[in-house]
Formats: sequence, C-alpha cells, structure tokens
Amino acid sequence: MSETMRAAVLNGTGGPGTLRVERIPVPVLRSGEVLIRVAAFGLNNAEVLQRRGALPAPPGGVPGLECAGTVAVTGPEVTALRPGDRVAALTRSGAYAEYVAVPEGACLRLPEGLDPVVAGILPEAAATAWWNLVHRGRVRAGDRVLVHGAAGGVGSFVVQLARGLGAEVIGTARGPSKTRLCVDLGCRHVLDYGAQDIFAELRRLAPDGVDVIIDNQGGPTLAANLAALAPLGRLVVVGTQGGAGAALDLSMLMARGAEISSSSLGKLDDAYRLRLCREVEREVLPRIAVGELRPVLDRRFPLDQISEAHRRFEDPGRVGKVAVVMAEGCGD
Amino acid sequence: MSETMRAAVLNGTGGPGTLRVERIPVPVLRSGEVLIRVAAFGLNNAEVLQRRGALPAPPGGVPGLECAGTVAVTGPEVTALRPGDRVAALTRSGAYAEYVAVPEGACLRLPEGLDPVVAGILPEAAATAWWNLVHRGRVRAGDRVLVHGAAGGVGSFVVQLARGLGAEVIGTARGPSKTRLCVDLGCRHVLDYGAQDIFAELRRLAPDGVDVIIDNQGGPTLAANLAALAPLGRLVVVGTQGGAGAALDLSMLMARGAEISSSSLGKLDDAYRLRLCREVEREVLPRIAVGELRPVLDRRFPLDQISEAHRRFEDPGRVGKVAVVMAEGCGD
Repeated sequence: MSETMRAAVLNGTGGPGTLRVERIPVPVLRSGEVLIRVAAFGLNNAEVLQRRGALPAPPGGVPGLECAGTVAVTGPEVTALRPGDRVAALTRSGAYAEYVAVPEGACLRLPEGLDPVVAGILPEAAATAWWNLVHRGRVRAGDRVLVHGAAGGVGSFVVQLARGLGAEVIGTARGPSKTRLCVDLGCRHVLDYGAQDIFAELRRLAPDGVDVIIDNQGGPTLAANLAALAPLGRLVVVGTQGGAGAALDLSMLMARGAEISSSSLGKLDDAYRLRLCREVEREVLPRIAVGELRPVLDRRFPLDQISEAHRRFEDPGRVGKVAVVMAEGCGD
Repeated sequence: MSETMRAAVLNGTGGPGTLRVERIPVPVLRSGEVLIRVAAFGLNNAEVLQRRGALPAPPGGVPGLECAGTVAVTGPEVTALRPGDRVAALTRSGAYAEYVAVPEGACLRLPEGLDPVVAGILPEAAATAWWNLVHRGRVRAGDRVLVHGAAGGVGSFVVQLARGLGAEVIGTARGPSKTRLCVDLGCRHVLDYGAQDIFAELRRLAPDGVDVIIDNQGGPTLAANLAALAPLGRLVVVGTQGGAGAALDLSMLMARGAEISSSSLGKLDDAYRLRLCREVEREVLPRIAVGELRPVLDRRFPLDQISEAHRRFEDPGRVGKVAVVMAEGCGD
C-alpha cells in the first residue's frame, strides 16, 4: 500500500467545482480503528452543506459519511475485524477517499452476496431511517405512517422499513416517476404534492389521523403535520428543506398528547452510535441481502467526476442515491 | 347503602359558585367496575377549566379525576378487589362525590399506613409526574432535570421522583416560601423567577445544558427552554399556563437532536392507562408509604365547602394540593 492516496478535498466553499481530487497521506490508524479500502461511497446532504459553508468543513477537508469496502489494515486493540473482511461503515468524515480510518464498531459486516457498491450507499440512509422510525417514531405493527419525500434517499428506506415493521405507509412525492417508485416500494397510498392538496386528501384517507410522520420539509408543514396526527402521534423532523421557522400552537400538541422530535444521528455519542450500527447490521443488512429491502441508486460516478456527482445530487430530477465507485471502468 | 348520595355538581359554567352540593343517584356499576366509598379527593386544574367552560363538562356534571377510599361494592367480572379494600383511584370524572364507579384496573391498592386523605390527592399528580418523567422525559440516573413550577402539585412530585431516580434537579418557583419548599423536596438549585433571570442563571449552573425539562408555562418559555437543552434533550410540556402560542425554530431542535412532547394522561387509551396505574402502584405508592416521597397538601375542606376549595385552588398563594375530605369534622 502506498503512503498517499487519492481523495476528493474541499478547497474553500462554493459550487461543485470546490471539490478537487488530490493525493494526500493515507490516514494514520488510532487505537480501535481499521483502515478500509473504499470500494464505493454515497453522497449525502451534509456534504453539500459543508461545500456551501453552511456546515463546518470536515477534518482535512475530506467529506463523506458512508462507504463500503474491504478492511486493509487493523489498528491496535481491534478485536473482531481482520484484513480482507468486507464491511460498510458509518464514518463521521473522510469517506470521499481511497482509504478511510473508522472505529471498528462503526463497521457493519456485509452479508454474503451484498454488492459493495450497493452497500456503500446504505449506511447513512439505513441508520437514519432505522433510528428515526424505531427510536424516534417508535413504529409498531398496525401503525399508520406518513412519509414525506418518500422517493428520496432516506424516504425510500423509511417506506420499506416501515412496511417491514408491519405499518401501513402513506407517502408523498412530486411527479409521476417518483410517485410510481413510492408504490413499488410499498406505499399503500401516494400523495403527489405537485398535483393535489396532500393534507386534504390525507384527511380523507386517514380521518382519525396517522401515528407517525417522517417529515423532511420542516417549518411550512409543521402545523398541517400536527393536525394530521392521531392521539399520542409522533412527528419526526428529519430535514428542514422548506425552512426552519414555524408558528407552533402547543394546544394542538397537548390536545393530541403528541410529540415532535428531530433527527440526530450526528448528535449521538459514540457508544450510542455503535449500538445503532449493531442494530442496522442485524436488522437491516440481512433484509437487503435477500432483496426484501431495495436501496434506490440514481447514478454512479468515478472519483474523478466528484463535481459532476455533486451536480447530479442537487438535480431535482434525481431519484435515489448517488454513488461514487473507486474501481476502474465504473461509469454509468 | 342508600340509593342517593351527595356530590358536587357543575350547574352551567362560571366561578366557584357554579359548583353545588346536591343529592343524586349512586352510580350503577358496569362490568369490571367497583364502587368506591370516597374518603377524600384532590382538586386538579382540569376541573377549573371545566367549570369555566374551557373543557367539556364531565358526564352528569360531576367532576373529579382522583380519590381514595374503600371498595363498597364490586360489579360483575371484578377479579382482584373485594369490598373493604383500601384503594386510591384515577377516575376520568365523578370523584367529587360520596361514591364513584371506577374500572377495577384504575384502582391502586394502598400500602399499609398510607392515610386515605393523603392518598386521595396522589393519583393524578403521581401518575402525571411518573408518566412525564419516565415515559416522556426518559429520565436516567445522572441526568440533569429542570422542573418549572417545582413547588406545584405536579412539580413537587416530579422533583422528588426525579431525585429518587438519581437525577440532579434544578427547580423554578416564585417567592421565598415556594423556593424553600423546593429545597426541602430535594432540588439541588432553585431559581426564583420573581427575583432573577432564571435562564441566565441556568446557563451559569448548567453550561452544557440540561437533559430533561418539565415545563408548565408553554409558549413564552419554549425558545429559552430549547436553548437550555443538552444534546438529545427532552422538553416535556405539561401545561401552558403562560399561553400556547410560540415561535419555533426547528434548527434549534435539529442542532440538539432534541424533542418536544406534551403531557397526555387523558389521551392514553384504557389499556395503556391501566398499565400506568400498575406502575404507579408498584413504583410510587410504596415510596410514599415509607416517607421517601411526600405529597404536599395545601389545605383540606369538607364537601360542603367545594366552592371555597376551588377559590383556594386558584389562589396564587397556594402551595401544593387542595383536598376535599368526606368524613365529618375535617375542617383545617
């Protein structure tokens, strides 16, 4: 292994061109870490926000919250993993590179037959969906779940996981190709917010309200979401794409005994995060390996085209995840 | 047992004089219910709101969410309780009376040595405090808990239960007699909102934030409460005494991975409510019987003085619960 590697590095803040592929030193392992030779990584919104300067830049300028690949080297005090093991990983940064150092516990062993390109776009969306549905939303069999942005990277996972947990899922999406995808993923009903008043339609479909709402819009839909909750309902805000400001009428919250929680993967302490990795490894990865859950891949790019990958990520026509694949000859 | 009984009945809506003691029929038991001969009942804010017309009137016009006494008659299909058993009960209405019909499961057996007058003012505050601290706030040993209105009927219970669960409690109250009570109940620090900027002082005391806030103010303190939360903190709104409207900045919620929930005892379905009764019976009543938890009794009245009892309940100088005692010669 050479002592330098190729990585996509943020040079200041700005558009997709701010990301440039450079040669930088391979990370030095600390105790309990393994070095993963990255086969593929997925893009997430956090990196767009870092690129624009809305979030702090990652250490060393290398972004990236998830990847999959092979364990190349194990650091001191690593107990379970060995070189050659196939893993996915939830990284805090650094996945936009040929090699990334990750705490052993943040690695998820890949089941037999799970393609590393598919696995590379999983960890963040799968962990986010699992955490918000199971720990925040506390979804149970028979619950009615409303998923906004149901065709998105996280939303598509949420829909499938909720179905797998025995819930009845109503999705929202914009336009015919995304609404069709939502039906394929298992939504019982799909509301097209480009074509109808989704909350009026929702009142017709679920006059007694829904038990859980997974929302990516934030402020503009807060009041309508609260009004759509059944008694003891849970509104989980996983994004504020429509804005963060909202007028909140606490009497609506009180009248339903409802709660509003927010997604918080980045706020979990290490111990909690590692427990979550074990849950995803045990509960989610096997369902993907047998085809019960299907990650939605929009397009794949080689590392050299990282700026194009970011452009595609920001294209409203994108459906599902954008992957960067490190091996040769992996253009779409 | 006579076929009529004395009860305090709401005659329309208005001031404390709206409540009048009348003779009405003793309730007829349905399957699974027991008839309790009431020894004492406690007053709660719901009855003031019903009296003012802000909440719907209770069935038959007889309010009352809690009492203690003795089982007089058991209805069909009652399995565990027998006539003569001493119980407290969480009623949905009807406790302002000599007799009240209650589902067997909503009765809590009184431990040896627990005075029925003390027990009569417990169920609602104890269940509310337990539900909000344990199920909503998920308080754990070592957590920092901020309790607004810490000298109040619910607040005083919350403080003591939180201490018993191993939390460090910071209370807020107004004026020297209430702040002294908060110290007696186990608050590590007490902030007097009549005398200081409580949130500025809180930042000094807990610069990293608090894990759980139990709030009875609602709208006016929402933003300051959210700003005072530690990562993954929980704000539990148990009242909106200051008003229900608030401007909510979801980015503050997201930045902390925080959640806002609302008290909801009345929204719990019967099965859930009965499970909660078992928890309070098992976890809270024994601590009261041995003196580890101390219900705070402001004053006791006979049933004939129900209007005076309501006046005292609404007096800002009240500290703790107001009880109505059914036996003779029980003036303060």
